This record gives sequence, C-alpha cells and structure tokens, in this order.
Amino acid sequence: MNGADAVLQTLADNGVRACFANPGTSEMQFVAALDREPRIRPVLCLFEGVVSGAADGYGRMAGNPAVTLFHLGPGYGNGIANSHNARRAFTPIVNVIGDHATYHQKNDAPLGSDIQGLAKVNSRWVKSAKSADDAADLAAEAVQASFGPPGGSASLILPADCAWSPASRLGGVLTRPSRMSVSGDVVDAAAKAVRDAKKPVVLMGSSACREAGLEAAGRIAASGVRMIADTFIARQPRGAGRFSPDKMQYFGEAALKDLEGVDLMLLAGTKEPVAFFAYPDAPTVLVPDGCRQLTLAEPHEDAEGALAALADALGAPSAAAPNALNLPDAPSGPVDARSVGASIGRHMPDEAIISDDSVTSGMGTVMQTRDARRHDWLGLTGGAIGQGIPAAVGAAVACPNRKVLSLNGDGAAAYTAQGLWTIARENLDVCVVIFANHVYRILSVEYMRTGSGDPGPAAASLLDLGNPRMDWVSIAKGFGLPAERCETAERFDAVFESAMANKGPMLIEAALA
Amino acid sequence: MNGADAVLQTLADNGVRACFANPGTSEMQFVAALDREPRIRPVLCLFEGVVSGAADGYGRMAGNPAVTLFHLGPGYGNGIANSHNARRAFTPIVNVIGDHATYHQKNDAPLGSDIQGLAKVNSRWVKSAKSADDAADLAAEAVQASFGPPGGSASLILPADCAWSPASRLGGVLTRPSRMSVSGDVVDAAAKAVRDAKKPVVLMGSSACREAGLEAAGRIAASGVRMIADTFIARQPRGAGRFSPDKMQYFGEAALKDLEGVDLMLLAGTKEPVAFFAYPDAPTVLVPDGCRQLTLAEPHEDAEGALAALADALGAPSAAAPNALNLPDAPSGPVDARSVGASIGRHMPDEAIISDDSVTSGMGTVMQTRDARRHDWLGLTGGAIGQGIPAAVGAAVACPNRKVLSLNGDGAAAYTAQGLWTIARENLDVCVVIFANHVYRILSVEYMRTGSGDPGPAAASLLDLGNPRMDWVSIAKGFGLPAERCETAERFDAVFESAMANKGPMLIEAALA
Repeated sequence: MNGADAVLQTLADNGVRACFANPGTSEMQFVAALDREPRIRPVLCLFEGVVSGAADGYGRMAGNPAVTLFHLGPGYGNGIANSHNARRAFTPIVNVIGDHATYHQKNDAPLGSDIQGLAKVNSRWVKSAKSADDAADLAAEAVQASFGPPGGSASLILPADCAWSPASRLGGVLTRPSRMSVSGDVVDAAAKAVRDAKKPVVLMGSSACREAGLEAAGRIAASGVRMIADTFIARQPRGAGRFSPDKMQYFGEAALKDLEGVDLMLLAGTKEPVAFFAYPDAPTVLVPDGCRQLTLAEPHEDAEGALAALADALGAPSAAAPNALNLPDAPSGPVDARSVGASIGRHMPDEAIISDDSVTSGMGTVMQTRDARRHDWLGLTGGAIGQGIPAAVGAAVACPNRKVLSLNGDGAAAYTAQGLWTIARENLDVCVVIFANHVYRILSVEYMRTGSGDPGPAAASLLDLGNPRMDWVSIAKGFGLPAERCETAERFDAVFESAMANKGPMLIEAALA
Repeated sequence: MNGADAVLQTLADNGVRACFANPGTSEMQFVAALDREPRIRPVLCLFEGVVSGAADGYGRMAGNPAVTLFHLGPGYGNGIANSHNARRAFTPIVNVIGDHATYHQKNDAPLGSDIQGLAKVNSRWVKSAKSADDAADLAAEAVQASFGPPGGSASLILPADCAWSPASRLGGVLTRPSRMSVSGDVVDAAAKAVRDAKKPVVLMGSSACREAGLEAAGRIAASGVRMIADTFIARQPRGAGRFSPDKMQYFGEAALKDLEGVDLMLLAGTKEPVAFFAYPDAPTVLVPDGCRQLTLAEPHEDAEGALAALADALGAPSAAAPNALNLPDAPSGPVDARSVGASIGRHMPDEAIISDDSVTSGMGTVMQTRDARRHDWLGLTGGAIGQGIPAAVGAAVACPNRKVLSLNGDGAAAYTAQGLWTIARENLDVCVVIFANHVYRILSVEYMRTGSGDPGPAAASLLDLGNPRMDWVSIAKGFGLPAERCETAERFDAVFESAMANKGPMLIEAALA
C-alpha cells in the first residue's frame, strides 16, 4: 500500500464514491491506485472547469463530497470559476491537487507554482501532505472539513512522493459534523418581531430551501408572512405539492420596488441581501430604508429546524395546502424562452434535475415548472457562467436513475463545452438544451445600464456571438452527442418530449434567433 | 473622459495595440471606452484560457504587451494555466481584471473573491485602483512593469467605479526598462572556464535564443563548444541560415546520458536545469556529478550580448557557416508524427510562426523544420497544455502578414477548443493541425514510468480519449472553421500544401490512429 492507496481507501471509508479527474504525470500513482479501490468511480473530464463543476453538481445532489483530481497549480487554476460557484453553494468537495515531490519543489520546475495561494481563495481548508501517512490522515480530515458547516471545498495538496511512498496505515473514519440548532430564544424573538411587524418577509438562503425548510416555509406563508428565496439557490426542490417561495429580484431597483413597505426582514440561512453588481446611483444593499433585519439562522446553522420552530411559534397551520400539478399547454410558433419553458414544464419527468446556466433565457422555465412534476433546481450561486454542463455531469453521476436537464445560454455553454464529451463517454442520462440567441444578452442589458448609449462597433463586437454563429449540433456531434436544432416551438416540443421518454445523452439547440 | 477612457488611452499611449477580452457586467465601461480608443483592437474570446493564451502569443511575437480583460476573480481564474505558461515565457502582458465598485466590495456579492490572491501567483506586479485618476497612473505603471526585465504579467484590478467615474488626466508615458549588460569580468571568467574545461556546454534560456543570441551561439559552436537550449523556449527563430542549438532532453535520465562527461555548464539566460517531474530513484537536477556551473547571464540580464562577448573572448569565427535550406521529401503511407512533420517542413512558407502544443507528436516536426524555411517556434514553457490554439490567435493578431501554424495533441486542443471560434471570427491566417491519436500518449508513457505495470480498467479509462473519439472536423465546423480529416500521408501533404498556399482559417485533423 502506497500513499495514493491510503488516501483513496481513506476517502472511500469516509463515504467518497466518485472521482472527477483531469490528471497529469504527478497524479499517475493516484490514477494507478484507482484500480485498487473499486468503491470510487473515476470520471475523466477533458478540462478542469468540467471537473470542478461536476464535483459541485455531484455534491449538491449526493450531499456527500466527490474527490477531484487536478494537475498542480495550473490544472487547479483552470477550474477556479466553477470552484467559486461551489463555494457560494456551500457544496462539500474534496480536491486532490497533485504537486511535485516534496524534495523537487525547491527546484522550481516548469509546472511549479504557489498552489496554496490559488487553492485558499475558494477552499475552507487547504493542507499539503508531508508524507504518505500524513496524506492518509489529511484525506480523512478533508472529508470532514468539506461538510463545514456550512460545506465547502477542502483542498489536499498531494506531492508525488507522498503518493508513491509506502504507507503504514489508513486515515481514520471521522464523524460528520452537523449543523447547530438555533436556540428557542432566537425563534421566540423572531416570532415576536413578525407579530409586531406590519409587512414582514423571511429571506431564505440555500440551506433553508430544502425539503423540510420549504415545508416549514409553506406553513409560515399560510399564516400570512411572505417568503422569499435568494436569487440563486444551490439546490431547490420544486414542483407540484411543494411550496415555492418568491424570488429575490436580480436587479437592485426591482428588488427594492418589490420590497416596498417591508418593515421586517428575517434572514434564514442567508445574509443581508446585496446587489449582484453596483451601478452609478443604484442601491447596493437591497433592504428598504427603515426595515429591521433579524437573523433567524446563520448560513452554518440549522435554518430548516429554525423555520419549523418559527412556524410553530407563530401558530401556523400544520401543513400548507399543496399546490396542484399544473402543466403548461403545448406551445406553438417561434422557439423562444417562453415556448421552451412550456415544453420543459410539460414533459419533464418526475424527479428530474435541472442544472441551470440559462442566464436571460431561463425565466420562462422558472415560471412554467413551478407546478410541474417534482424536480430539483440547481442555481448559479456564484454567478460565474459555464456551470450548466459540468454540474449536469456531476448530478447525473450522483443520481443515475434521474433525468438531468442542463439548460444553457449559448455564451455560457461555450465556456465548458468539453463537458459534452464526458456526458457521451459515461452515457449519462442528460439532455442538454442550448438557448442559441447568438449574443451575450445579459451583457447587452448591462451595457444599456452603464448609460453609454448604443454600443459602437468595438463594444458591439464584444457582446455579439453571431459572427460566426456557433453550430451546436456540430459541436455536440464532435464530442460524441446526438443533437438536433429546433426552429419552431412545435418541433422543440416533439424533440424534447422524445428526449424525456428515452434514456441517454442528447443535445437540443433551441434556435431563438 | 471617465476612468476607463483614461486607462485605455494611457495604455495606447504606452504602445498597447490589442485587447483580448472576455468581459462581464463590471467591465462594461471599459468595453464602451474601446469605441473611443481606435488604436486598440478588441478581440473577443469565448473563454478566459483563450484570452490569457492569446495575450501570451501576442506578447511573444509583438515584444509588446496586449491588454486582457477579465471578469473578476472567477474570470481571471479560468485563464490561470495559460497565465502560468506566460510567466515561464517572461511574456509582457497587462491584465485588466474588473472588480466590484470600491464601496460594494465589503458587501461580499456573489461574484466577489480575493482577486489579489489569485493574480499574484502568476503576476510580477499586482495593484488595485482606488480612483479613476489612480487607475490611469497604474495603467502606465503596469505597461512598464510588464517589461521586467525579465518580462511578465502586470495585473491591474479595476473596480467598476474607477472605470465609470470622471478622470481628470491621463497616466504618463513611461520609459521601457532595458536588460542590464553582463560585465566584462564575468565574460572573461566564462571564457577562461571554457578554455580550461575538457567538455564544456552552454545552456541557453529563452532570452538567449533570439536572432542575435543564436548568431553568437553559432560562432561559439564553431569554436568547438556545444550549445544546448532549454527544452521549451518562448520564441525561437529557426530554419535555413540560422544556428539551431541542441535541445535539453525532456526526461532526466536521457538528459544526464546526453551530458555525460560534461565538466562545465555555462548558463546563459537560464538557471540550473531540473527535471520536469521527479520520479522514484530518478535525478531531479540535470547536471552531471562534478560538473562546474557558471552563470554567464541571469534571466533578467542581456544574455545575447553576453554570448556575443563570449564569442569574441574565445576568438570564435566572426560568423558560423549558415545551414542550407533542406526540405524533407514528400511523405507517403500512413499519417504519423513523422509524415506530418515532413509535410510541415516542405510546405511551411517563409516567416511562418509555429504555436506548439503537440506534446508527444511534435518531435517529427521539430526535426524536419530545422533546415526548413525561416520561422519562429513558440514552445510550451510552463508545461500546461491547452496553449496551442490560444497562442496562435495572439500570434496572428500580432503578425497579420505571417502564416501561423497551431500544432496540437488532441488532448491538449480539447482544453481550449473555443479558441477556434476567435480564429474564424477574426479571419486569422491560422492553420490548426490536430494530431488525433485519441489517447493522452504522454500520460501512457508517464504511467509506465511510475512502475505500476499495465494500467487496469480504471487507470486506462483516465488515459484514453477514444470512447468516444472526438471528431475535430465537426468541432471545427461548429466553431465556424473549414476543416478536413486526413487519413494518409499523401492526403495530408496535399491538404496542408493548399492550406499554406491560401490565406485564412483552416483545421486539419491528422488521423494518427
């Protein structure tokens, strides 16, 4: 047993079951050890942004960390945008970042760099192994650290000699830390504040928006308090029979308008709401003047339990009236965000998973799946586009018996299109939808908000994706995926219905323009 | 004039002529300002690794920095692998990394992260602007800092309000720092050491391997001293009439065998040679036992001048006999690394630029272009694959009248395939060759070197690219490039000849397996 074996077995003993990998030379011992640890499934990704995004999607769905495998600093670096999204989703992830052998690090070989410096930005825990036995101990510690609370990335830097040297023992099996309960005093104070307020709202973060939290939220809403979720939630169970909170508006001025007159904001598993971006003369803190803020549960606390206790304290009904299944009508005419959303709402099977990176095109789907069949929605928590395909890879590996939908703007999909290959290779049950409008639509909107007038030719060239148009059917074919372009709502509806009825990889280009 | 205008004009006043961009909301003012600064050409890239790699290729060829435009920490992060390669190539680059408005940073909005922490790993200079006027001053300072010596990335973090606020003035026009000359004493000592040695060699780094340095090296070689270049050189002029030093071997044991008996190693613009990776029981410092090392020029000094002075001190001939043009014969049979190399050697036009990311497949081209028409070779200095397509983009923007060849392993090309779109969009004169062997060949070699025996199914699955095979003709078509797959040496030769005779984008898949 070498260090790589000890690390892998320790990870498996602590519940790790999947490895998303883009290895290089310094990781070959770890790769070899995978053949001796059948509990962990290796999944090759062609690019590190797919690795980190897949680990995020996996962790959100499995509730358990996957292990990633990166090739030194540059390899880890390439995955930073999706690691950032995972940090904002509090997703448990164990990164294994290969490094030069301990005694070779001083030589500053070409691939050497400050891995700790890179990793600490998006990790809650970073340690570098000093020996094979040390590596095994740190592997156990990393899994534990990844759970938080709240969860996050734990990055174990594994020098090559710590992987190839003999190990004398495994790391331990460590307990999984649990979230701390909110005290009765806090709940009572919150209940009193709600009763005293004229127009209270509860703002729910990712940790509050799970099955039990939503059930409690539905009860609180039934007692007359408006429930609002953060704009982007890591994983939200939705669909018929489930309570759907309202959504915090993306643009600050719209959010403040929506919150007009609110005099109490209770924070459940989140923090004070702020604007995604600042703009000249626009608000950045999205709380109305004079509104009182009160924290019911911090992001690392048990927000779901706190909401249930608050519902009890408010004397809320024991259950909210469930919203009935309500499917959209068949769409017709041109393909647009609304017609695609209708098709998705109509045909999405029970327990589907939506990996959303659809930027401006997704709103039609958000609305038309609210009362559709039950599903989980994975949101773009960190705002870094290029997550939709990779997170779908991870979700499909975590939940092989559920249909996964990956919804992507064409600009967003271009960041990590290589993820299509892993979908094909692993024969994952993923349907990728590309909203092809051939423009960074969100940036056209944002450009207008800068007050710069109409874009001139230089600016327009940086917002436009139409010259040439990406042909997503060819790109998909190139990466081994069957694909079809749909130019009418009727055609999209038929192709999507068929994709939902059949298992396996598929890409549909929704020709929006 | 706002801060973005002041930054852009200051950059242009200091010689910046190209902007490789992947902007987001916080960079919209900078995008708008591009319409008011026609001296700087904006080039949109679909992914940040293309941005950083293009800036590297541009800087190597132009000798002047391009400016990049990144969207906060996650955007910059995605470009880290190619930023790493640029650091190892000492390429002058000015990064502009957009950030939240100064007063919004404390709010920890979703896209917020530690940009300084990320940027400092691969930058020689990192500063964050505090105001619009400050930003203009820093823009001038960044250009100056990018020149070093030796050169590197200067990263200017530009908060959105520093871009949109009024600026009262431009930054200055700063002098470009020059390399320090090596003293006569150092040269004399080196000459004496050479005369005293039985088997001296001179090891040349990137700064020594330019036109004048190679001319001096040819003279020194003519006086009987073996000249060796680092394995990967940032930009090396090659071809008929030019001296070609030998190459430092990639694998340590081969390097030491090649250097057997060497008793003096002079370092010209480089440092002590070390192995790319450590392996159990293998050498990491590639200098024979008992060999004396002497530094003729540090990487930041004038290595070319030092070599010329050494040639004089050694009484070397005033010019080496030029190597004659010698083109390979027409290849036939199956497509392989050797036959592709022959076609490239035969048909590559005068003053072509080779952006090399061909890993194990490139050796045939290295050998068969040695005495071909004159060209520049851009090497993989940092070892992070995924550079070949992006650096070709940058080289083509820097040198619009020269043919650019992008040579890529299929595994390497998959990291940054999105760069094909920019080649098509800008109608760059780039011919992309994909060596399609459907395996990470280098890793198969490295795996064997771990001593793990034959890969089992898990390990094999992480080395193999054959299931499914990437179809590069479809991928190219998807990104707007004409493409052809060639399955015989004759066909490749004909298609490549035609690509060399015509201007414009083209991709050729060399079907190696």
